[in-house]
Amino acid sequence: MSDSRCDIGFIGAGVMGKNLILNLVDNGYRVCAFDLDHGRLDALLAQDAKERGDQPPRVEVCNSYTELLARVKAPHLVILSVPAGAPVDDVCNKLLDAGLRADDIVIDTGNSLWTDSVKRARRYEGKLIFFTTAVSGGELGARFGPSLMPSGDRYAWARIEPVWHAIAAKVDPASGQPIERFEPGNPVTEGEPCAAYIGPIGSGHFVKMVHNGIEYADMQMICEVYDVMRSALEMTPQEIAEILREWNKGVLHSYLIDISAQVLDTPDSITGKPLVDMILDRAGQKGTGLWTAVDALKLGCPAPSIAEAVFARALSTRKVLRTRAAKKLAGPDVAPVAKDKRDEIIAQLHDALYCAKICVYAQGFDLMKLAAREQGWELNFAEIARIWRAGCIIRAVFLQSISDAYERDVKLSNLLLDDFFVEQIASHQGNWRRAVADATIGGIPVPALSSALSYYDAFRRESLPANLLQAQRDFFGAHTFSRVDRPEQEKYHVLWSEAGRPVKKV
Amino acid sequence: MSDSRCDIGFIGAGVMGKNLILNLVDNGYRVCAFDLDHGRLDALLAQDAKERGDQPPRVEVCNSYTELLARVKAPHLVILSVPAGAPVDDVCNKLLDAGLRADDIVIDTGNSLWTDSVKRARRYEGKLIFFTTAVSGGELGARFGPSLMPSGDRYAWARIEPVWHAIAAKVDPASGQPIERFEPGNPVTEGEPCAAYIGPIGSGHFVKMVHNGIEYADMQMICEVYDVMRSALEMTPQEIAEILREWNKGVLHSYLIDISAQVLDTPDSITGKPLVDMILDRAGQKGTGLWTAVDALKLGCPAPSIAEAVFARALSTRKVLRTRAAKKLAGPDVAPVAKDKRDEIIAQLHDALYCAKICVYAQGFDLMKLAAREQGWELNFAEIARIWRAGCIIRAVFLQSISDAYERDVKLSNLLLDDFFVEQIASHQGNWRRAVADATIGGIPVPALSSALSYYDAFRRESLPANLLQAQRDFFGAHTFSRVDRPEQEKYHVLWSEAGRPVKKV
Repeated sequence: MSDSRCDIGFIGAGVMGKNLILNLVDNGYRVCAFDLDHGRLDALLAQDAKERGDQPPRVEVCNSYTELLARVKAPHLVILSVPAGAPVDDVCNKLLDAGLRADDIVIDTGNSLWTDSVKRARRYEGKLIFFTTAVSGGELGARFGPSLMPSGDRYAWARIEPVWHAIAAKVDPASGQPIERFEPGNPVTEGEPCAAYIGPIGSGHFVKMVHNGIEYADMQMICEVYDVMRSALEMTPQEIAEILREWNKGVLHSYLIDISAQVLDTPDSITGKPLVDMILDRAGQKGTGLWTAVDALKLGCPAPSIAEAVFARALSTRKVLRTRAAKKLAGPDVAPVAKDKRDEIIAQLHDALYCAKICVYAQGFDLMKLAAREQGWELNFAEIARIWRAGCIIRAVFLQSISDAYERDVKLSNLLLDDFFVEQIASHQGNWRRAVADATIGGIPVPALSSALSYYDAFRRESLPANLLQAQRDFFGAHTFSRVDRPEQEKYHVLWSEAGRPVKKV
Repeated sequence: MSDSRCDIGFIGAGVMGKNLILNLVDNGYRVCAFDLDHGRLDALLAQDAKERGDQPPRVEVCNSYTELLARVKAPHLVILSVPAGAPVDDVCNKLLDAGLRADDIVIDTGNSLWTDSVKRARRYEGKLIFFTTAVSGGELGARFGPSLMPSGDRYAWARIEPVWHAIAAKVDPASGQPIERFEPGNPVTEGEPCAAYIGPIGSGHFVKMVHNGIEYADMQMICEVYDVMRSALEMTPQEIAEILREWNKGVLHSYLIDISAQVLDTPDSITGKPLVDMILDRAGQKGTGLWTAVDALKLGCPAPSIAEAVFARALSTRKVLRTRAAKKLAGPDVAPVAKDKRDEIIAQLHDALYCAKICVYAQGFDLMKLAAREQGWELNFAEIARIWRAGCIIRAVFLQSISDAYERDVKLSNLLLDDFFVEQIASHQGNWRRAVADATIGGIPVPALSSALSYYDAFRRESLPANLLQAQRDFFGAHTFSRVDRPEQEKYHVLWSEAGRPVKKV
């Protein structure tokens, strides 16, 4: 007699949860869902009813944690889609009270801080198997194929793998492009799934966090080139949308460019004006970009362009201050750009965005590398780039190039040293410099594009002026320095207040 | 009968401790010192013997915590100069074991993390009065007059105030300049002391942390202009020293410019070459700059130039990678600068450094303002700027202008809005833009100078492209947005996948 119970218990039917559940049932899994908010379960059932037409219901819901466990096959597989933080522990404890056992698996799919995941795995050890899977792709990704970054116990992974492979976004192996079919009941089953085991607990959410940090910078840089086109070239949103659609056919082909073009083409259904002009310019944030920048600082990993993107959002929220400042603070006197210069400047902006994007990814992958070294994770960077090719927000043709780079050299120390990217920047950097210099002269802020350029220029310098900085530190704080003509571990100090300022080995 | 015991117990006779002790005895305080490392006490006694000539010994030392308490007047005043972190608690606990009482004051003068100080005050409540004082000025400052940022219990402050006023750096009230006299036994007793009560426990170390964040950016920017003079203008260290000495007579007059000139003028006593060229360009750091950037990120305070300075240090340490990259990564083809352009470019660099410096201080003071609001501190920014005019590493004539700005408007929301600074940047920004643009074209990294300029340009923009960013976020994550024509608290969402993309209020 076959077990008539469900395959998966699912807790949390908010935006992400609901869509993941529908994705699971599309792929033939029997899911029993529970949410403390019964309205959400009703909405889930209604959505299922709408999608399935005259087919029998595919989603099951229940009224308690106890019922959930009773209706799901043991050992249980329970997926959580609840807000990060305390709710995750609350649900784990409720499940334990309801009878969850040591061989049951709980998968946290929320936006948890990676260090919290590490603590949880330790906290629940021997009580349940705490596994995490970071999910990227927003609402639509969750529904028809997200990018999944699972981490935790390897044995648990063996059981989870087929589920994640089924619901993940898929890539056409021939083209490296996403296979997208947004049809309920007709999931994409062919192609390479964007779900790969990342490593020990915490690593998946760390990788997802860096994904989001890159996403912050990517979005900010698109906004910067938009701003230059809008402010310096005086182009309309529709004209800019056209340019972005052009760009989307080449090396910048990506989801974010695509949706930016769509946004800029959208009229406001209330006033009829371009919608973008009716949106308040105060950027929100949920914290993952901030975490990325904080971890980069703490790990001593240069990721300035990600930090600039976070600060740009922070500055955007100071609208009242900016409005006052706009009336008071001087800018340059800039003549409008002649129409016949437009194409040239647009080409410069294209190359600026492309080169800066390479630097941002170099920073993000460098950060993962440093974290992996510190945590003892063995991250497969080619694989990480591969699972970001579809489903997630930063999906782009560009990620195939990154994956190829790490395939060529699994120990590649930084993306900027890969031959392909070396060549790409070499041939585009002139325009990049021009675009940043013109914005600088013209008074248009391009913090991420210019920070990426400074990163590139510092990165390729054998000698930086940090020698003067070390001398300053030794002068006021006796911090000592190393010499270029002696082994680095030998430290020297100058007796700055003595005649002749003798250099002494310490 | 007068009490023959000492006024102050002092624990820790490292570089900072030893100099603070000698400063205290110079000012007539009787100090009993203790250090677990007896060698340090011997060095302290030797230094005192050297300085006092044929006068009687001025410093007393002892062999245990118990002896220290016995030899110091009760209620005790005990100053700690021990490494930040666990050693502070270790000493507090040892002092309690030795009989310290609830009305005894312990002052931590180390580089503690400000949140640790808050925790400690709570931990030792009722057992001892835990007070902190952040000290800036390095070795020489500690010896002849540091800048002091005390915080904690107000009653304790009443007792500490005369001591700190005595040993602090002094400013000539007429000129706003430091009164510097580096003579043992002949302390500066006239002028305004650079020691002022900052606020509740933690606030002093927070303010000192921001001081250090500003210091990081200040040093980095000096290195950037040095780099341009060295690399683009092909000037020798001595020629650059000469320029810095010129600058030091004007608005850039500061300790850091002064010591940079001295460094660049110093020959290596080993090889005879310019010393700066013999120093390895890997910058060290102790963490306070990093903490500043992290707190700025967490508080949502735009402080990009401070973060850039921290990242620049991080990148400098990747010397092996940079050396490889230097051989592989393309830069621009740049013609050497014509000699007759030199003066013009030097003037541009001067103005770039000045304007960027204003922005960095604007960021730092903004950060203190946001932290004060969050923590419920009432910080006196005019006073903070005043106590930084002498003794500390960022001491500069410039701080008088900042103090004046906050005197004019105690609620000033950002330094950039003060009339004086508005005018200063207005009249210098052209050169600033030129310097950054030229470095950008020329391939010389100027991350802090350019990040400050982006900050300025974003700050003075009523409208930033964050409207596009909010649309992107709503597109992929249903994050909603506010409209420019409706109250901000009303949130809207576009049904992006529906025909006509209707805008709905949520």
